[in-house]
Amino acid sequence: MILFQCDYNEGAHPKVLERLVQTNPEQTVGYGEDGYCLEAADKIRKACGDESLAVHFLVGGTQTNMTVIDAALRSHQGVLCAATGHINVHETGAVESCGHKVLELPEKDGKITAAQVENACIEHRDNGSFEHMVQPKMVYISSPTELGTIYSKDELSALYEVCRKYDLYLFLDGARLGYGLAASDNDLTLADIARYTDVFYIGGTKVGALFGEAVVISRDELKKDFRYLIKQKGGMLAKGRLLGVQFDALFTDGLYLEIASHATVLAERLREAFLKKGYELVAPNHTNQIFVVMPDAHLEVLREHFGFSYDHRADAEHSVVRFCTSWATAEDNVDALIDMIEGI
Amino acid sequence: MILFQCDYNEGAHPKVLERLVQTNPEQTVGYGEDGYCLEAADKIRKACGDESLAVHFLVGGTQTNMTVIDAALRSHQGVLCAATGHINVHETGAVESCGHKVLELPEKDGKITAAQVENACIEHRDNGSFEHMVQPKMVYISSPTELGTIYSKDELSALYEVCRKYDLYLFLDGARLGYGLAASDNDLTLADIARYTDVFYIGGTKVGALFGEAVVISRDELKKDFRYLIKQKGGMLAKGRLLGVQFDALFTDGLYLEIASHATVLAERLREAFLKKGYELVAPNHTNQIFVVMPDAHLEVLREHFGFSYDHRADAEHSVVRFCTSWATAEDNVDALIDMIEGI
Amino acid sequence: MILFQCDYNEGAHPKVLERLVQTNPEQTVGYGEDGYCLEAADKIRKACGDESLAVHFLVGGTQTNMTVIDAALRSHQGVLCAATGHINVHETGAVESCGHKVLELPEKDGKITAAQVENACIEHRDNGSFEHMVQPKMVYISSPTELGTIYSKDELSALYEVCRKYDLYLFLDGARLGYGLAASDNDLTLADIARYTDVFYIGGTKVGALFGEAVVISRDELKKDFRYLIKQKGGMLAKGRLLGVQFDALFTDGLYLEIASHATVLAERLREAFLKKGYELVAPNHTNQIFVVMPDAHLEVLREHFGFSYDHRADAEHSVVRFCTSWATAEDNVDALIDMIEGI
Amino acid sequence: MILFQCDYNEGAHPKVLERLVQTNPEQTVGYGEDGYCLEAADKIRKACGDESLAVHFLVGGTQTNMTVIDAALRSHQGVLCAATGHINVHETGAVESCGHKVLELPEKDGKITAAQVENACIEHRDNGSFEHMVQPKMVYISSPTELGTIYSKDELSALYEVCRKYDLYLFLDGARLGYGLAASDNDLTLADIARYTDVFYIGGTKVGALFGEAVVISRDELKKDFRYLIKQKGGMLAKGRLLGVQFDALFTDGLYLEIASHATVLAERLREAFLKKGYELVAPNHTNQIFVVMPDAHLEVLREHFGFSYDHRADAEHSVVRFCTSWATAEDNVDALIDMIEGI
Repeated sequence: MILFQCDYNEGAHPKVLERLVQTNPEQTVGYGEDGYCLEAADKIRKACGDESLAVHFLVGGTQTNMTVIDAALRSHQGVLCAATGHINVHETGAVESCGHKVLELPEKDGKITAAQVENACIEHRDNGSFEHMVQPKMVYISSPTELGTIYSKDELSALYEVCRKYDLYLFLDGARLGYGLAASDNDLTLADIARYTDVFYIGGTKVGALFGEAVVISRDELKKDFRYLIKQKGGMLAKGRLLGVQFDALFTDGLYLEIASHATVLAERLREAFLKKGYELVAPNHTNQIFVVMPDAHLEVLREHFGFSYDHRADAEHSVVRFCTSWATAEDNVDALIDMIEGI
Repeated sequence: MILFQCDYNEGAHPKVLERLVQTNPEQTVGYGEDGYCLEAADKIRKACGDESLAVHFLVGGTQTNMTVIDAALRSHQGVLCAATGHINVHETGAVESCGHKVLELPEKDGKITAAQVENACIEHRDNGSFEHMVQPKMVYISSPTELGTIYSKDELSALYEVCRKYDLYLFLDGARLGYGLAASDNDLTLADIARYTDVFYIGGTKVGALFGEAVVISRDELKKDFRYLIKQKGGMLAKGRLLGVQFDALFTDGLYLEIASHATVLAERLREAFLKKGYELVAPNHTNQIFVVMPDAHLEVLREHFGFSYDHRADAEHSVVRFCTSWATAEDNVDALIDMIEGI
Repeated sequence: MILFQCDYNEGAHPKVLERLVQTNPEQTVGYGEDGYCLEAADKIRKACGDESLAVHFLVGGTQTNMTVIDAALRSHQGVLCAATGHINVHETGAVESCGHKVLELPEKDGKITAAQVENACIEHRDNGSFEHMVQPKMVYISSPTELGTIYSKDELSALYEVCRKYDLYLFLDGARLGYGLAASDNDLTLADIARYTDVFYIGGTKVGALFGEAVVISRDELKKDFRYLIKQKGGMLAKGRLLGVQFDALFTDGLYLEIASHATVLAERLREAFLKKGYELVAPNHTNQIFVVMPDAHLEVLREHFGFSYDHRADAEHSVVRFCTSWATAEDNVDALIDMIEGI
Repeated sequence: MILFQCDYNEGAHPKVLERLVQTNPEQTVGYGEDGYCLEAADKIRKACGDESLAVHFLVGGTQTNMTVIDAALRSHQGVLCAATGHINVHETGAVESCGHKVLELPEKDGKITAAQVENACIEHRDNGSFEHMVQPKMVYISSPTELGTIYSKDELSALYEVCRKYDLYLFLDGARLGYGLAASDNDLTLADIARYTDVFYIGGTKVGALFGEAVVISRDELKKDFRYLIKQKGGMLAKGRLLGVQFDALFTDGLYLEIASHATVLAERLREAFLKKGYELVAPNHTNQIFVVMPDAHLEVLREHFGFSYDHRADAEHSVVRFCTSWATAEDNVDALIDMIEGI
């Protein structure tokens, strides 16, 4: 059985693992104050082209989302988000458990627009009973989104401008950031993302690490006391250097982008095979996730040899399913899948 | 200026106020453990035809909603609710501030159906990653709804059955309950409501009291320790007898229904006048709230003499506005409004 | 049975009640935006000698405490408080339910000192793992305290200075403020209190009103969006004018202080009788609360005619009990109690 | 520089690391539903001698504490805990951030007794205003404690009995459990701990793993929906098998106890050297933590070559410091430290 179910089916990239093994016997202080964390943070700042950024390492995505959001919002403030946003549907109410409402907006291919954010702010402001409603104070986006689509530089900078205009924070969830940066249609650099957000994170869990997310904060007021929040939300790893070591490896010699590109190139090959076969793509994109409409009969056949994730029923005879590639995807496995599809 | 803006523009019904004045110098113990509260609770139990009900008095609606919901739910559980539900849009995230997600469902005329609830439960259960999603555990409805519509006996009992089937609590917000009971098309008694919900409340604030909501709990597990929750959420009035005295007055000689009927009868007269004038009603109902589409030009004229609440723009030349009657509405004022409408 | 149990055994002062009755039929807008609230806020600002103060009206004490504290603190911040402080022991964890830790300090006669606050801040700052601990950000005191004692001008200004030094907010719970201002040994004016705190409140519930607490905010950053918090915590009364009307009455012609003095004068008479009888006072003070050590045998006799509250056992044959006077205490009742004590 | 600062200065035990490396390229499903997690859970159930136990794997201690506590308590309930308990002082208010008060009890050598718990319950029950206070519903202990002491079988079973009597949950934080089990004076087996608690955890982070805590639940009502809570609190590791693999290694061939014994044996050697030198031990114990009073002059000398953690000043010339051994401590390093101490 070959799994294309998700991008966290394997362990860590060999170079990351190697560094963990090498450094294993060393003694360091805990909680992310060791030299590896400092070094990795420096490399990330350099990659983002801004020495003033605060960089922190957390373990997982849900944890990171709730930590960032709770650090930023007062009790009566909420976070605007696509209806399909991860914080809205797949984190068991982690944001609400911190006391904040997720203010959902209709999405298109997993994305929201600056115009939607502006409208939400205007509606709130102009509502006679605005104090009876949650105040929008942050915009949460992910790029790539839940559907694998990405924001363009124009879209992101427009969101950033509207956030400035209405005094909102812009937070980009980059759990799959590498696969966005490595998409053939991407026009954003890490530096752009740092410039056009107030806080974002660079996903390690899905892009080569055993686990780990690197939070990058540009807005000063969000930097203040952030480590308290990490600790309170359970994200301060005792052996924090494990995160430093991994991100250090990922940000050495361009490894992060290199391994992400491996995944997006293989995904393109799969996409071509799907299209050639006449399957329709949902929310077409060039990252590592492929949402595709397939005949249930074909899925029956595939299921015997390949793992993928079922999304939802499209019609009586078709379903939408997801195939993911990752830094770990073997070319042979992609070939095998393409062969089988061609032969169905 | 005559106000039809809402149903809490005036103080208390004279009979309620009289009892407050009469009992003012008396000494009683605090926090709702006085004789007036015990007596009022008894009268409510009798009116509901069930001696086993727990009855508690709180001050206001938002407070009551969050107290009941937080008493019922564990951290990972949420409350299903119409998108227009008060807890979803007009309580500044009070439910979320207690850690719980409001799971919104599309509404029709402010209402949701048993079928929608069942679907939500099935979808949750059948979702492969259900533990990543908030677990539906309660259904919140209001009757009358935010749009003045009411649930029929069939609709409520169907909701109750589906809640039994999927082990959910059914919670009915009765901030305007009297106006629902007094609606010409209502087929629910207080006893029905007690039978077909796990917990509901009888609104006093909008129906004759200075303030106050009487929570009625039928489900045993929700009764446990409820007073702790009242205290923690700030709803335990030091001079609790003020609530007992008021509800005692409202539930003596049928005052509650009598004064609610006053409002619904006057609302019917207004509705007739609006329809006669050719205005369209939104979410037509027979309670004390009238949502009506009016030409902006007419609103301009009315605005000089009458208060009403603006809801939203219908088209370039029309708006939806709300007129409320209440126990306190003077017949003369209704006549004056009708006269003006006829004359526009 | 004559009750000296607490200071909320009766309804409202006649002048307050009269105003509620007079204004009862009037129509006003809701939620505290009516003319009575505006007027009452103005009078309070004048009484405090500072036109820049924000004044808001809430219903009860627990509600006010959690609203103010949650408005002020970020998630990782806590509030320093005497171990006996009301928020620490008598509010069913309302502050914790908003996510904040109460950082208790040992108290003396219900009070804490500037030196204690300074030590707590220094300890936190100098602790190597300070990010693993809740950050002190607010100081909560009440005056009168739970034991009836009051802060002097020197004590309060010292607390305020240390709060400035360490960037903490100073919050004074004035649920019984009137009885403190009316104490014979008080040297604080309302203007002093406004000057030497960041936020405080003027208790109405225990000093002449049916209910109500007037929050007075001097620190600008605490003023921002405060009404959102009131709404979210369930403290925004629909018929908000009830609060305005009552505080307007209390702050007309010095009524608030006048009726508080009535209580403190009668309390002094009781104290003299207790001392004459040879009873020992606990946490001696000149406000309306008397904590006194009495032989259990005497309590048995008193109990037949008088209500008081039992505090704790002092030794095998003595107990500490509390007697309260209030604005409503009848002189005759005090005489009757003194007679009985003299005669035991 | 040789570090005795804490028990998480190094990576993982070689056998644990080896298994991580071996399994690294394998594909498994995520979120702890893989075969390694199932297998490790089985081994832990066997080690505890109870097939009915629920076993879950989380990443870190603070996260585990808040997840367990929030899963167990309703809003108005709190957790009894030694004043020095980790949740009370070193988790930045994580428990409070979930809405629950930590009810601190005075401790002796880091421990609390069944009698203290019983008194707290009786006091709560008999307090006239118990609904105004947080209801004790859980007891939190750690063994070893923050001071390295452990609970005996008698002490633990007495706590368990009193918890049964007053319907409380007993929760044992075993972040350092191995070092307790391996202490020379320990009389508790894993099976005893499972029997005399409702929920406890087996610490991996400090005993041979890179990270990870295995929660073991015996009480049925605490098992329900626990995975929702893990997800919501950010503790559900995407590559959950990393936890399974590590605990599988630790519970194969008795590795967990074996490596813990390594630490406690070395700690005993250090203790002897300290006592021989005339230093006084604080909260004497036989686990891996040594709290010792040393002359500041000696600390100055040691500091050049050895890391330890500073606890607090004992008197003008002495301080209390902590030395920790761990599974990773090299015998040579212990020898070197002993040599230096003897030579000072």
